[in-house]
Amino acid sequence: MLARDLAVSRNTVEAAFAQLVDEGFVERRVGAGTVVVESLGDAAPFARPKSSQGPRATAAIARTAPQPLRLGERGRAMAELGQAEIDSDTGTGTWATNAPEFPWRDWNRLQSRQARRSGSELLAAFPQAGLTELRSQIAKYASLARGVRCEAGQVLVVNSTQQAIDLAARLLLDPRQPALIENPCYPSAYAALIAAGADVRGIPVDDEGAVVEALPEKSEAGLFYVTPSHQFPLGMTMSLPRRLALLHWAERTGTWILEDDYDSEFRHDGRPIAALQALDRADRVIYVGTFNKVLFPGLRLAYLIVPENLVDAFAAARRIVDGYTAPLAQVVLAEFMASGQFARYLRQAKRHFADCRNAVVESIAETWGDAVRLGPSSTGLHIVAHLPGRTDDRALAAKVHGTPSVAPLSRYYLGREKKKGLMIHYGTAGPEEIRAAIRRLRPPF
Amino acid sequence: MLARDLAVSRNTVEAAFAQLVDEGFVERRVGAGTVVVESLGDAAPFARPKSSQGPRATAAIARTAPQPLRLGERGRAMAELGQAEIDSDTGTGTWATNAPEFPWRDWNRLQSRQARRSGSELLAAFPQAGLTELRSQIAKYASLARGVRCEAGQVLVVNSTQQAIDLAARLLLDPRQPALIENPCYPSAYAALIAAGADVRGIPVDDEGAVVEALPEKSEAGLFYVTPSHQFPLGMTMSLPRRLALLHWAERTGTWILEDDYDSEFRHDGRPIAALQALDRADRVIYVGTFNKVLFPGLRLAYLIVPENLVDAFAAARRIVDGYTAPLAQVVLAEFMASGQFARYLRQAKRHFADCRNAVVESIAETWGDAVRLGPSSTGLHIVAHLPGRTDDRALAAKVHGTPSVAPLSRYYLGREKKKGLMIHYGTAGPEEIRAAIRRLRPPF
Repeated sequence: MLARDLAVSRNTVEAAFAQLVDEGFVERRVGAGTVVVESLGDAAPFARPKSSQGPRATAAIARTAPQPLRLGERGRAMAELGQAEIDSDTGTGTWATNAPEFPWRDWNRLQSRQARRSGSELLAAFPQAGLTELRSQIAKYASLARGVRCEAGQVLVVNSTQQAIDLAARLLLDPRQPALIENPCYPSAYAALIAAGADVRGIPVDDEGAVVEALPEKSEAGLFYVTPSHQFPLGMTMSLPRRLALLHWAERTGTWILEDDYDSEFRHDGRPIAALQALDRADRVIYVGTFNKVLFPGLRLAYLIVPENLVDAFAAARRIVDGYTAPLAQVVLAEFMASGQFARYLRQAKRHFADCRNAVVESIAETWGDAVRLGPSSTGLHIVAHLPGRTDDRALAAKVHGTPSVAPLSRYYLGREKKKGLMIHYGTAGPEEIRAAIRRLRPPF
Repeated sequence: MLARDLAVSRNTVEAAFAQLVDEGFVERRVGAGTVVVESLGDAAPFARPKSSQGPRATAAIARTAPQPLRLGERGRAMAELGQAEIDSDTGTGTWATNAPEFPWRDWNRLQSRQARRSGSELLAAFPQAGLTELRSQIAKYASLARGVRCEAGQVLVVNSTQQAIDLAARLLLDPRQPALIENPCYPSAYAALIAAGADVRGIPVDDEGAVVEALPEKSEAGLFYVTPSHQFPLGMTMSLPRRLALLHWAERTGTWILEDDYDSEFRHDGRPIAALQALDRADRVIYVGTFNKVLFPGLRLAYLIVPENLVDAFAAARRIVDGYTAPLAQVVLAEFMASGQFARYLRQAKRHFADCRNAVVESIAETWGDAVRLGPSSTGLHIVAHLPGRTDDRALAAKVHGTPSVAPLSRYYLGREKKKGLMIHYGTAGPEEIRAAIRRLRPPF
């Protein structure tokens, strides 16, 4: 009857009934035909939408007014801090670098070859700590380029610096335990420490980097997040006496040092300064490096180099957090490094970014003159132009669109006392673009 | 003099001294030459190794005995639970599927084309919630294949089911807040809840799935993690009355339901049952799906479908946790879906895995006979063979090597009462391999 009424085949109706039986809406009773399952009562699920004016016999689970958002306290903090970071990414493109020389063609060729070669075997791998070939290449590179002292077995491949910090914070800190961070600081690292439930405290910074004398002698802190090669955001390099004092303090107090070495590959004046980890003899330093800046952010490859007795704990935590990093990108990068293409590209990129640095420094000196004081610029992909304390640097930064991207220095300070300035990311533009942009933005701005 | 003594060029010595100056070890004083920086004192960093018998003037930071491992309480739990999961992966290859028909050639061709086309622009993208094209494809697929009711804007691309659960737990739960999970359960989900600091409580399961009547009427629980389409590990589908009762309970108590729909694409008998999310009218269900099982684990692509008012919070939390998922895999998958290749592959894979299921069920019936009782097998990629309560299923599972991979059922129970059996993952082997393996393992085993 139904088939006739609907002008469909009998099979179609049979299939529909079979599905209703499968899903538990109706049941077939011998001699009684097919009937709605009794236990459903009025609770049939597909209620009419609210706008319907018809009877609402099936409204038991009708769509109700939106519930108030029920997040945990940690959840609210994560949502709030993460949103601030997203807004800032959108506004400034902070982390996008743009080295025109990147050999996309070579990279893609490697990728195609590896994808063909590897097939299901590679792509079904479970390398929590990363693929062996890449871990070896990273150990070699970090040791040559950054003086890091490690075996390949101490390297853990992760998706990003952010994941490295988040993992370390969750693994090493207890909720409500103090954690230390430089002030001013990298806000995403601050957010990760907060997300781990830490009681985050700022440590002041001067021309030699974090003021080690300001560290508490009896410390309950679980870790101290530092950027010794290139303080974020101010740009200075931590002095050797400070480094040694910091390591002594870490050893005395048993505090972990989380060293974020995010862009010191780009050392424009003189030779690179070795990583803090290179001086550590007490296994207190956890080193974080990334390819998302040296190569490109969409690569999603960074690494941790941890003391031997932490390797298993980090790999195990990684299993719970998201599993492991996509193997294909790992083999491609391993080959890119082993073949010498990485080193070659890095040399070109260094020259390019040094030109960008020079363009910023020169054009600021020419155009802005005494209106600003420039911070250190020997390393990395950004520079701070300090402004008088009364300046509204947020309003000023908001006026700048396009490249180079600009962020207000005050954004990076914890607490009430905030210095004013513009943090200029010159990794996102070529030298000529930079000069033009600086010229457009004349003091008093 | 040094150049002569060492038989190197004067430039080499100059460069070495310049580096020592840069690194802060020595300083140049007008009229006095180059001297070791005074403030270093005895704290020179490159101490001799301990084995050296010479004088130890530079031993201030000499390598000391390994410190006891200082992890937080959460860190210890993460390390322990994660390690158990890794050990279990290694032993059983739980999550590796092996559908011989996967069109690697087509996939790689798409990937090469996208990699060429996209270049730096795509790879510098910041899509916390995922690339728009892929979110649209997922919304369409989840709605057609699983009855999920959503807009593309509610889809968040993540790396894995594990990351989805971890994100939800951290975002929605407060430390020490109760969280509910089926008992027996998926141990990696349990681990993620523990890692979020939750007070995890098991809810019993019977033939109709989670026993909703056992849920506390006054619940403080933040969320309930369920596997309604294919209970993990027992394999039953949650009945419709239970689904409705669960949704009513969630609405009354304001508890989030975290629905893990990990492998119900593979419905071997009858048509797929719609997801629990399809019945939710109160926006309480957070749905998790994954391509790491349907396609291949190394892809590292899964997704969350969340109520609209949670989208921003999840995207923001993702920013703190690791940033975003690699864009290249996302565009490749979006095209693979849009072109119809995904649907085509899925049909082939379904046939393949149905053959595997039949091979397991038939050969167990033939070979093992009454020694075991088989659990439901209409869905997914595994089946449970129940054994008498006195059996040592761990010892038994440990005897099985190769494919199909086998895990002891008792491993998945919380608390002391554990049922015994073998959980057989037939996604890792072809039908003939399965028959041979079952035949080899004869009762009483």
